[in-house]
Amino acid sequence: MAEKKVCEDLVKERKKCTFNVEELTRLIDGGEDKTMERREVEDMVINAGGLSTKDEVPEEYLSHKERYENAIRKASRLFEVFREYAKTHDTTDAFSPTNKYRVSFGVVKDISPFMLHMGMFVPTLMNQSDPDQVAEWLPKALSMQYIGTYAQTELGHGTFLRGLETTATYDPSTEEFVLNSPTLTSYKWWPGGLAHTANHCVVVAQLYTKGVCHGVHPFLVQIRDLETHMPLEGIKVGEIGPKLGFQTANNGFLGFNHYRIPRRSMLMKNAQVLKDGTYIKSKNDKLTYGTMVFVRVLIVTDLAYELSRAGTIAVRYSAVRHQSQPKPNEPEPQILDYVTQQHKLFIGVATSHAFRVTGNWLWNSYSKVIKDVSKGNMDQLPELHALACCLKAVCSRDAAARVEEFRLACGGHGYMASSNLPIINGIVTATITYEGEFTVLMLQTARFLVKAWKEATTGKVKTPTVSYLVEFFKNDRVIWENTPSTMIKGFQAIAAGKIRTAYETLEKHVKSGMDYEDAWNSASVQLVNASEAHCRAILTEISWKEMVRLSTTVSPSLAQVLLQLAELYLIYWTLEKRGDHLMYSTITRDDIQKLQTRYEELLALIRPNAIGLVDAFDVRDEILNSTLGAYDGRVYERLMEEALKSPLNAEPVNQSFHKYLKPLMLKAKL
Amino acid sequence: MAEKKVCEDLVKERKKCTFNVEELTRLIDGGEDKTMERREVEDMVINAGGLSTKDEVPEEYLSHKERYENAIRKASRLFEVFREYAKTHDTTDAFSPTNKYRVSFGVVKDISPFMLHMGMFVPTLMNQSDPDQVAEWLPKALSMQYIGTYAQTELGHGTFLRGLETTATYDPSTEEFVLNSPTLTSYKWWPGGLAHTANHCVVVAQLYTKGVCHGVHPFLVQIRDLETHMPLEGIKVGEIGPKLGFQTANNGFLGFNHYRIPRRSMLMKNAQVLKDGTYIKSKNDKLTYGTMVFVRVLIVTDLAYELSRAGTIAVRYSAVRHQSQPKPNEPEPQILDYVTQQHKLFIGVATSHAFRVTGNWLWNSYSKVIKDVSKGNMDQLPELHALACCLKAVCSRDAAARVEEFRLACGGHGYMASSNLPIINGIVTATITYEGEFTVLMLQTARFLVKAWKEATTGKVKTPTVSYLVEFFKNDRVIWENTPSTMIKGFQAIAAGKIRTAYETLEKHVKSGMDYEDAWNSASVQLVNASEAHCRAILTEISWKEMVRLSTTVSPSLAQVLLQLAELYLIYWTLEKRGDHLMYSTITRDDIQKLQTRYEELLALIRPNAIGLVDAFDVRDEILNSTLGAYDGRVYERLMEEALKSPLNAEPVNQSFHKYLKPLMLKAKL
Repeated sequence: MAEKKVCEDLVKERKKCTFNVEELTRLIDGGEDKTMERREVEDMVINAGGLSTKDEVPEEYLSHKERYENAIRKASRLFEVFREYAKTHDTTDAFSPTNKYRVSFGVVKDISPFMLHMGMFVPTLMNQSDPDQVAEWLPKALSMQYIGTYAQTELGHGTFLRGLETTATYDPSTEEFVLNSPTLTSYKWWPGGLAHTANHCVVVAQLYTKGVCHGVHPFLVQIRDLETHMPLEGIKVGEIGPKLGFQTANNGFLGFNHYRIPRRSMLMKNAQVLKDGTYIKSKNDKLTYGTMVFVRVLIVTDLAYELSRAGTIAVRYSAVRHQSQPKPNEPEPQILDYVTQQHKLFIGVATSHAFRVTGNWLWNSYSKVIKDVSKGNMDQLPELHALACCLKAVCSRDAAARVEEFRLACGGHGYMASSNLPIINGIVTATITYEGEFTVLMLQTARFLVKAWKEATTGKVKTPTVSYLVEFFKNDRVIWENTPSTMIKGFQAIAAGKIRTAYETLEKHVKSGMDYEDAWNSASVQLVNASEAHCRAILTEISWKEMVRLSTTVSPSLAQVLLQLAELYLIYWTLEKRGDHLMYSTITRDDIQKLQTRYEELLALIRPNAIGLVDAFDVRDEILNSTLGAYDGRVYERLMEEALKSPLNAEPVNQSFHKYLKPLMLKAKL
Repeated sequence: MAEKKVCEDLVKERKKCTFNVEELTRLIDGGEDKTMERREVEDMVINAGGLSTKDEVPEEYLSHKERYENAIRKASRLFEVFREYAKTHDTTDAFSPTNKYRVSFGVVKDISPFMLHMGMFVPTLMNQSDPDQVAEWLPKALSMQYIGTYAQTELGHGTFLRGLETTATYDPSTEEFVLNSPTLTSYKWWPGGLAHTANHCVVVAQLYTKGVCHGVHPFLVQIRDLETHMPLEGIKVGEIGPKLGFQTANNGFLGFNHYRIPRRSMLMKNAQVLKDGTYIKSKNDKLTYGTMVFVRVLIVTDLAYELSRAGTIAVRYSAVRHQSQPKPNEPEPQILDYVTQQHKLFIGVATSHAFRVTGNWLWNSYSKVIKDVSKGNMDQLPELHALACCLKAVCSRDAAARVEEFRLACGGHGYMASSNLPIINGIVTATITYEGEFTVLMLQTARFLVKAWKEATTGKVKTPTVSYLVEFFKNDRVIWENTPSTMIKGFQAIAAGKIRTAYETLEKHVKSGMDYEDAWNSASVQLVNASEAHCRAILTEISWKEMVRLSTTVSPSLAQVLLQLAELYLIYWTLEKRGDHLMYSTITRDDIQKLQTRYEELLALIRPNAIGLVDAFDVRDEILNSTLGAYDGRVYERLMEEALKSPLNAEPVNQSFHKYLKPLMLKAKL
């Protein structure tokens, strides 16, 4: 296809931009070298043979089965391309999971059936196997002889790990574990790639030895024959069916009928079972925290990335779409010129930045804490865990709301699959549930906050992220000024106030004679609110400080834009939570109206840079996969081109006319 | 399939119920006769041959094309069943569009490709044709010789009707109109059934006669041959492709290449074109308002119905699902016992009731106004229009949020297509955009409110729904008490305050020298907020008053439950908007905490009736189509049964193993 002209609206928008787009791209990537590396990988994948989707029937028209087969074809080719690249390049950095994940969107257009292989199977083998096991298994896993997944969740059991029913009972006579699924609800359910792709998986099961249950432990289990791919005797495996999204993830179920595996299939870095069945306990239960925290930290930055994809689509579309005629005899304006549209879009762009910088900050905290842990110091682990829980929960909710707002901002066309917004929606909304359900995570953070509050009443708090509790313990009403530092202080006062209220409610219930856990349940709506308030205090403070810090590292023209986005984010949330600020500060109606005016000023300031801001996300057309969001803005042409690929459009008359409609019409005449 | 036992949890729940479920069902339906009639129609459809889906491969596994063909097969059979029934029954009432729409879910499982035939094509012919045209066209449309749809929206033009580009130019020499699509953006885009189903459609086009454009008018246009179904010469028609939902609606595009239709194809009840090309203007432009308002009123009650479907699924699942073990040695509780879960669920159930009673109230207002209009009195039309706009907009947003909350309340299983929640989500979220985009409608209401505010400054307001403005014109701060009437007053004070603020911002911009329309745009975020506040004042007042009124017509045990739901709805929104109440009343932190406590008490009071409340919605399994929500609560069995229907599960090894995975594994060994 010859290069098509860029739509005039976008040409004009790009001329308006006041900052260097490439400079922002490099900032987002984390440096020029990272940007170059990313582009090199993208080039390689996009230009590799056997991956182009341009002339194929788009995935959405295919049957569920065809989509799976298509995804396997592409994911396999993609793996080969990466394998080839790894021969000549240091891939430890370029092939961070994040990079692979992103570029694979361009190819698979949804979740790859191999996602859990690299995302969970390999990391679990690396982190939970002993050295001999790593030496034996890891090369096979990395080279795809073992195609794996991670099977923990069961049909009847999710977040509550202790409730898992799958058993692994040690038989010392044969030195084997017997895996069994005693009930329907004990079937493993959900693991990506499990259905028809994986030949191995890590299975989490209740370990029994010498008649005693030792709780859940991980086991490496072969489930299919390596030659024939047939499920092995004693294994029942299949797919769980279509979902809201993740159509090509090949999520599966798995049941065991007294299925035997060797003793050394248990991942033995931590706990062990000796030949005679003796159970050796793990030295530290908290070590497994690490992976969970790791995944949740990654989710926050992934959400920032998904927001950049959705934002690119919605902002570019809004520059190309024209609507209404507020003034007679003037042309219909770009919808991007409507302030209500800017209100829908710019907060989403600002949120992408806020999540990215907060995610990076969380990543640094994580790295520090993990270093401490490796030295035997676990002190910071509970704080990190509490942070990762509420940030994952709140950011996933916020991101889903923002993506939906982006989608709605594209009117009817945002409902088209070819816009790609429905798929991004499906991916983002799933994060609210997986890797720790929203409410469960919020209540885990609340447990930490209640403890911190008790500490604060003594005037001291051990951990920095809740040190604000001490300040607001006595007086929780902030003297208001319309400044960023007061707004941040305001969010801390709100958090302190809500933690206090929830705590007092909890105490009141306990004093009235309730069990602690009943009291906890009764106060749980308020406890979740307290966690959210704490998370808002973190998000507003960290995103503001990080954006201010970054602004000192770039050119003045870019610095200005970064500060506008940071201020927009802060004011947006101050206005959104004005009810809470009214409760915990001296803010007045007049202050609020002034913030509203400033918010509207910021929308106007950001407006000329709107396209520059999304261009800087640098999401290529081949990865964006959107009729509405392509770089050239040929929105209507692309919508029609995609529609014409429909197999239904290949025939002027569908067979159903002769079979059903015509008989119906004939009967009418009788 | 033999009748399966009802799950023990649901048996117990049903015993707890304190009211007569059937009594509530009849109240919801609008009387015993309506309930009986509805069930009769449902029985007929469910028991009719050729419609059962039980042993078929579920729709979600099929290709896009197969899904369409399947939908046509079922919709045609459904039409025949209804036609047969109409021979012996008075169908004017039983076959209200609402009833048909609902029962067709059980059959088509998504939107029928005939939906716009009965929903828009027939009503437009009835309302906008002259008597001769009605006599000629209506019988053909009702009997399905004319299979029709309604084509207004274009690829480049939605809400802004004046922007439509399709032209209908009158040629007096042949007494024909020439329809033309001058650009790509002028192609009709979106009409349901247009792609491969309809042979006729009402086309809205710019009318030109004697060289003058008279704006948009409707035309009846044949697009396919009645014998062969081939698109006629000069017509380009096809489908627009897959979407987030509405997969079987067969949405299409349509372009005209100087396509000629007879003069009498123009719908001539209002405006007319004479043989010589003379244009006769419609006597009243506002008459076309009627249909738009009608559709928006229907949407509010449809949303109530969709909430009842989603609520049935989520509440029943929550009674069957057990999770965690807050107390050692006790079994895992039903998740319905977690207060956070009740918080997610019960407001959704209460919202269904609030929307239904408000929708019915709006319907009565509509009927009254339309009666007046038919007598030539248009006075109440602007108020009705303003009401329908904001209620449609706000209720669609709220409903989408509640459905998503229901879905998330089902954890991972709510993400399964077989839960049916993704499909309901797709249907409900679309209502935010179609039949008037959210922001556009909110700003239409705002135009009315700004006028009403100007009137209020004179001390008098013409229309009852904004009469509160007079009261709060001078003093907008309500003296707070924690009572329903104060809460309602509070919402009115908020609305008045926000209308005032938006109005003042608008005036300020105008005084600063802006054009009125620029000032309007600059103030539009605040204007939308004002519309929302007005709508909340209407929703809280009407739903409270209607629920109180209904509670006087039922048994005391049911009355108690209705009042609990009404109070829950009112307090939920008071807490949700506490920031606004803090600005416009004397409410204190202490009042708010007391309301929070009362809210939590209400959750506990409603808890034992949770299953009774959703049973009373009386949505049959065959219409609910949900693995999670069936009456018997066999959640896990159904999930597995549905999964086993996957064509991927019909073979132990998918062909992609041999084609792609095995070569990948072999290369690894080299």
